[in-house]
Amino acid sequence: MYRFNSDYLEGAHPNIINRLVETNSIQTPGYGLDPISDSAKAKIRAACNAPDAKVYFMVGGTQVNYTVLDSILKRYEGVLAADTGHVAVHEAGAIEYSGHKVITIPESNGKVDCAVAKAYLERFYADGAWEHMVRPGAIYISHPSEYGTLYSKAELTALRSLCDNYGMRLFLDGARLGYALASDGSDLTLADIAALCDVFYIGGTKVGALFGEAVVFTNPHLGEAFFTEIKQHGALLAKGRLLGIQFDELFTDGLYVKIAGHAVKHAMQIKSELKAKGYRFYNDSYTNQLFPIISKQRLDSLKDQVILDDWGPYGDASDGMRIVRITTSWATTKEAVNTLLSLL
Amino acid sequence: MYRFNSDYLEGAHPNIINRLVETNSIQTPGYGLDPISDSAKAKIRAACNAPDAKVYFMVGGTQVNYTVLDSILKRYEGVLAADTGHVAVHEAGAIEYSGHKVITIPESNGKVDCAVAKAYLERFYADGAWEHMVRPGAIYISHPSEYGTLYSKAELTALRSLCDNYGMRLFLDGARLGYALASDGSDLTLADIAALCDVFYIGGTKVGALFGEAVVFTNPHLGEAFFTEIKQHGALLAKGRLLGIQFDELFTDGLYVKIAGHAVKHAMQIKSELKAKGYRFYNDSYTNQLFPIISKQRLDSLKDQVILDDWGPYGDASDGMRIVRITTSWATTKEAVNTLLSLL
Amino acid sequence: MYRFNSDYLEGAHPNIINRLVETNSIQTPGYGLDPISDSAKAKIRAACNAPDAKVYFMVGGTQVNYTVLDSILKRYEGVLAADTGHVAVHEAGAIEYSGHKVITIPESNGKVDCAVAKAYLERFYADGAWEHMVRPGAIYISHPSEYGTLYSKAELTALRSLCDNYGMRLFLDGARLGYALASDGSDLTLADIAALCDVFYIGGTKVGALFGEAVVFTNPHLGEAFFTEIKQHGALLAKGRLLGIQFDELFTDGLYVKIAGHAVKHAMQIKSELKAKGYRFYNDSYTNQLFPIISKQRLDSLKDQVILDDWGPYGDASDGMRIVRITTSWATTKEAVNTLLSLL
Amino acid sequence: MYRFNSDYLEGAHPNIINRLVETNSIQTPGYGLDPISDSAKAKIRAACNAPDAKVYFMVGGTQVNYTVLDSILKRYEGVLAADTGHVAVHEAGAIEYSGHKVITIPESNGKVDCAVAKAYLERFYADGAWEHMVRPGAIYISHPSEYGTLYSKAELTALRSLCDNYGMRLFLDGARLGYALASDGSDLTLADIAALCDVFYIGGTKVGALFGEAVVFTNPHLGEAFFTEIKQHGALLAKGRLLGIQFDELFTDGLYVKIAGHAVKHAMQIKSELKAKGYRFYNDSYTNQLFPIISKQRLDSLKDQVILDDWGPYGDASDGMRIVRITTSWATTKEAVNTLLSLL
Repeated sequence: MYRFNSDYLEGAHPNIINRLVETNSIQTPGYGLDPISDSAKAKIRAACNAPDAKVYFMVGGTQVNYTVLDSILKRYEGVLAADTGHVAVHEAGAIEYSGHKVITIPESNGKVDCAVAKAYLERFYADGAWEHMVRPGAIYISHPSEYGTLYSKAELTALRSLCDNYGMRLFLDGARLGYALASDGSDLTLADIAALCDVFYIGGTKVGALFGEAVVFTNPHLGEAFFTEIKQHGALLAKGRLLGIQFDELFTDGLYVKIAGHAVKHAMQIKSELKAKGYRFYNDSYTNQLFPIISKQRLDSLKDQVILDDWGPYGDASDGMRIVRITTSWATTKEAVNTLLSLL
Repeated sequence: MYRFNSDYLEGAHPNIINRLVETNSIQTPGYGLDPISDSAKAKIRAACNAPDAKVYFMVGGTQVNYTVLDSILKRYEGVLAADTGHVAVHEAGAIEYSGHKVITIPESNGKVDCAVAKAYLERFYADGAWEHMVRPGAIYISHPSEYGTLYSKAELTALRSLCDNYGMRLFLDGARLGYALASDGSDLTLADIAALCDVFYIGGTKVGALFGEAVVFTNPHLGEAFFTEIKQHGALLAKGRLLGIQFDELFTDGLYVKIAGHAVKHAMQIKSELKAKGYRFYNDSYTNQLFPIISKQRLDSLKDQVILDDWGPYGDASDGMRIVRITTSWATTKEAVNTLLSLL
Repeated sequence: MYRFNSDYLEGAHPNIINRLVETNSIQTPGYGLDPISDSAKAKIRAACNAPDAKVYFMVGGTQVNYTVLDSILKRYEGVLAADTGHVAVHEAGAIEYSGHKVITIPESNGKVDCAVAKAYLERFYADGAWEHMVRPGAIYISHPSEYGTLYSKAELTALRSLCDNYGMRLFLDGARLGYALASDGSDLTLADIAALCDVFYIGGTKVGALFGEAVVFTNPHLGEAFFTEIKQHGALLAKGRLLGIQFDELFTDGLYVKIAGHAVKHAMQIKSELKAKGYRFYNDSYTNQLFPIISKQRLDSLKDQVILDDWGPYGDASDGMRIVRITTSWATTKEAVNTLLSLL
Repeated sequence: MYRFNSDYLEGAHPNIINRLVETNSIQTPGYGLDPISDSAKAKIRAACNAPDAKVYFMVGGTQVNYTVLDSILKRYEGVLAADTGHVAVHEAGAIEYSGHKVITIPESNGKVDCAVAKAYLERFYADGAWEHMVRPGAIYISHPSEYGTLYSKAELTALRSLCDNYGMRLFLDGARLGYALASDGSDLTLADIAALCDVFYIGGTKVGALFGEAVVFTNPHLGEAFFTEIKQHGALLAKGRLLGIQFDELFTDGLYVKIAGHAVKHAMQIKSELKAKGYRFYNDSYTNQLFPIISKQRLDSLKDQVILDDWGPYGDASDGMRIVRITTSWATTKEAVNTLLSLL
């Protein structure tokens, strides 16, 4: 049986596993204060063309989101996000737990549309009671979005400018950043992202690592005590070198983008063949997540052979059509793809 | 050079590494909902003689402490702890971050003394203003303590009884639990701990795992929504099976206690030889942490050959004497011990 | 000049002022542990036909909302509210500050429609990822709503039943409760509300008091340590008798509903005359808040004579029409009403 | 019967009551945006010789403490306080509720001794693990202290300097500030306090108001969004003018210090006569709180005639001696004092 229901179903890329094995008996200081972590950070700064960036490694995405937002928001500020944003929906209220409201605006193709955000901000400050309301202190975007869609350089530049006009920070959730960098669908480089955002993270968990996310602060006024904030949020890994090892491998010889490209290539093949077979799609994704429309009946009939992710009814649902997520990863094999395509 | 400054300086026990390698390409559901995690939980329940216990895996100790305490405390309650307790000192305020006060009482040999706790509670409820103060809702103990000391079965039973009398819960931090179970210094079994505490955790990070702690709720009224609480605290590992794999290995053929015993044996050898050489100790530990008194000068002279942990001045410090921590682990070698002993 | 922009523009009803003057030099214990507060609580229990209810006095509405919700919600739960609810919009994020998400559903005439709430809950628990999301632990309603509208007994009964089915609590914000009780537009008595809700509050600030809200817990399992929770939320009034005095007066000889009736009568007169003059209304209110549609130009022309509350554009706003709030209170005079009507 | 157990047992000074009566029917905007509040703020700025200070009115002391500290502390910082400080003991954990640890050092005559604080800070930053601990971001002092004692100008200047050296803010809790200003025991003026602290508050509740505290930010970098923070902490009074009215009266013709002086004069008389009668005192107070040592037996024998505040056992308590608090206020009468003295 093959699973296509997410991109964190296997272990890690073999280079990572090998490095873990090789380094297992070495003694290093804890908490990421080891030479391997230093090496990984240097490689990330270089890849971002951001020599002064502060880089921190954390274990998982929700952990990053709530620790970073809590760090960059003032106590009375909230974060503006698309209503489909991970922080708004699937983090069990972690952001609110840290005391901050997630202020949602309607998503546009899974993204924050700059015009929609601007309209919200204009209305907000035009309201006589705005000092009784939650001030947006940052914009949260995910790239690729939860729906596999991508920001263009023009879009990200516009959001940067909006943030500047309203005294807000810009935070990019890159849980699947590799798939964006490897895709034809966006013109944004890692250096662009580093230049345009105040802080962002490069996701490892969903792009070939066992776990791990690299948080990059490029705004020099932010993140000054982030080590302590990581600890305070229960998120400091004792054997921090495990994170260093993984990112050191991912940022050696472009492995990170290379393995993401492998996944995207498979996804694009699946997309093109399903289109040829007449399948409709919920949206047009250029990354490793695809959202075809498939009937409930068909979906059920497959489940002993391939597991896809049922995202809920499509349209009025009376016809039993579902939005389905198909996800590829660094570990997806040609054989698995062929099996999937033979079944659909 | 050899490091004796903590027990999380290396990777993981080879059995764990091997299992990670073997299982690396298998696809499993995320978030700990995989068969390996199920197997590990079953083994832990059996080892605890607690067939109905709820078992959850988390990544690190501070994370466990603040998530568990936040889960078992009412909103207006605090936690009673020794003033040397990890939650009181070295968690960057994670407990307070979650809204709860750590109420400290003076430590007794690194532990919560039942009589001291009882006296505190009596005074507290005798105070006319107690409803304006923070009500102790739980007692936090660490076993072994941060000073390597151990609770006896009689002591833990007394604390259980105190908790019952005051409507409090009893939480045991077992970051180094293996070393207690493997030590001659305590008569407490894992089943005793499961029977006497409401919730406790079995530490993996410091006892041979790459990372990971197993939280065990034996009080059936607690932990009912703990999965969501883990997520809310940013602590849910996507590839949860990594935790399952590690604990499944640690709880196969008694590996957990076996490797802890290896560390304790080395520590006892070091203690006995240092005593023979005339070294004084800050306290009398029967686990893998020792606290000899060593002069600053001597400590400095060693630092190119062995790294020990300087815990601060001993006594009035005018004579330059320091409390030093020597820690052994599953990975400590005979060669390292001999080198250490030859230098001291 | 007359102000109609809210119902907290004056001091307090003369009976309250007189009682403050009379009692000024008496010595009483603090924190509401005085005989006048006891008397007021007894009167409220009687008026609610809830002899076992726990009654607490607090200073203001946002304070009540965030303290009560934090008390009745489990740590991982959020509160379901209409997207126009006070807790969702105008409390500067106090609910999120206390760690809980406000889960919004579209308002129906300013209210939570039971069918809309039910549909939300059904979808929520049908979602495979619901354990990664914020569980609704309570429903928040305001009666009258922020738009002056009212729940019927049938509607409140349906919400009670929905809460029972989903293990949720029902909390009613009665900041303007007097105006509901005095209105012809609802068949709900104070005793009905006490019987159907788990907890609610009787608003004083907007109904003739200087300040003060009476929180009533009728669910015997809730509010057990509420005195301490009030203190913890910074909300305990040292001279608690000031709250007792005000509610003791308001609940003597039906003063509370009597003065609210005065305001409603004036509002109904204004509504009827404005309708006769051809004004349209945003909705149909039977309480002390009215929402006529008035042009920006007209509104501006009045502002030296009467101050109304501009709630923002009506419809597409291209025609300059605004939703305006006109509010009456216990202190509204015939003269003020006549002036207003002569101007519109 | 006379009560001497606290200074918030009566209503308010007659000037305040009269002003409340006079202004009762005036209409003003809410939330403190009224002309009377503006007038009161101007008088306070003048009295503080701080023309640019930001002044905000709040209802009670715990509310001020937790809102101000939450505003001036970074997310990962705690507050340093004497272990007898109000924030450490009697606020039901409000500071921790807002996410910040109260770091306690041993009190010195009820105060923070600069040398003790300095020693704490030196040890803190000398600890290799300080980044895993809670960084002190502010010093909290109360003046007069909870034990009626006073800071000298030299002491406050030293604390200011310590704060500057460690990048900390200095916050003074002036719940009973009037009694300090009216006492012979301190050379600190209101202008000195304004010049030396970053933020402080002038207590009304315990010095002749019904309720109310005036928060004064003199550090121009702090308190910029404090209006919203007040709202977020549930602390914004709808009829804000009630606070303006009270402080406008208290700061007219020096009423605030005048009435505090009345209380202090009575206290000094009681102290001197009790000393003459041979009573010992727990400490030497020059404000309105006295702490004589009285036997339990004697205390019980008085309770139908005067109520004093039993603060607990003195010394080993085997002889039944208690520390007792006697408090005078603006409302204390000669008759009451004479009765008390005749009984002791």
